[in-house]
Amino acid sequence: MGGEGKSASSSLALASDPTRILLGVNESSLKGYPNASISCRNAFDWTMQKIVRSNTNDFKLLFLHVHVPDDNEDGAGFDGMDLIFASPEDFQDIQERDKKRGLHLLKHFVDCCHQIGVPCEAWIKNGDPKEVICNEVKRIQPDMLVVGNRDLSPFQRMFLGTVSEFCVNHAVCPVITIKRTADETPEDPIDD
Amino acid sequence: MGGEGKSASSSLALASDPTRILLGVNESSLKGYPNASISCRNAFDWTMQKIVRSNTNDFKLLFLHVHVPDDNEDGAGFDGMDLIFASPEDFQDIQERDKKRGLHLLKHFVDCCHQIGVPCEAWIKNGDPKEVICNEVKRIQPDMLVVGNRDLSPFQRMFLGTVSEFCVNHAVCPVITIKRTADETPEDPIDD
Repeated sequence: MGGEGKSASSSLALASDPTRILLGVNESSLKGYPNASISCRNAFDWTMQKIVRSNTNDFKLLFLHVHVPDDNEDGAGFDGMDLIFASPEDFQDIQERDKKRGLHLLKHFVDCCHQIGVPCEAWIKNGDPKEVICNEVKRIQPDMLVVGNRDLSPFQRMFLGTVSEFCVNHAVCPVITIKRTADETPEDPIDD
Repeated sequence: MGGEGKSASSSLALASDPTRILLGVNESSLKGYPNASISCRNAFDWTMQKIVRSNTNDFKLLFLHVHVPDDNEDGAGFDGMDLIFASPEDFQDIQERDKKRGLHLLKHFVDCCHQIGVPCEAWIKNGDPKEVICNEVKRIQPDMLVVGNRDLSPFQRMFLGTVSEFCVNHAVCPVITIKRTADETPEDPIDD
């Protein structure tokens, strides 16, 4: 018989801890905060429909938003950078200025998970998204990373680079990239 | 609130058909047929442990083996190239010469699935693995493709190319590549 046969016996025995899925989420380039990008909403929907399905206790979703500080922000960045948000109530006392920095983007996904009943955690980091995501993968060691992808042409990718491509090549866990469908793609595919 | 909020309501409603996962499986370069490569056994184990878990009715595994004909084989290739194998009994009447062409490699995975209770289908195609896998993705439209990966250095990849890299860039479905762990990697990482 083919293979070494350890698969069948060990596969299910090891499946007691929930599978931890890290999702990189970002804001819409068209609508800005607190709206999620088309790609990351798509990646979340896909994860729920194709992986988690109705088995909500078998999975834990980890949402990471990397905030890219603009020139007008003070260097210190978001006040609650080390906070973890796991339920809608965790968002009650956040300050107005922090809403701008992606907290309400996370609230959307935490609310969805809460409604569906799948455990989750969400947090924000400052920096370069592709570098931060790969560092966070190293730190928290998820079972897999899901990232959205705009499906740009090779020519567009050459100038823009893509976070998903970088993660596929550098993240130290299995990575799955979810592309937008044609009907979701804005007129300018660089928009998201 | 962030996003367009269709996620939470639609995610679980759409999850009635099983999630169809295509796995590309190949023979061990060290042991030859019918032994499965380290990479693809790893990819199968990962899929069972991290995705399927105990939810065997929510998933269907599709095993594709691409047989690369060698110079000594007649051009016609494998007799049963259009057969689909879904249970251990389906392998009873195969001819001796066809065993050489990867049928017993498929039998290993079908046996594992049968034992675990997860529905599956398995089949063989002749040709260039990376091209055939991407064509089959187009034809059968799985929800995701899982492929093993030897995690070669950039220098080794430049000369060898890798099936997984090609699939990530060309398959028209989400693709996840599963790397071997350090302790599973043979002395020469090109071996598998």
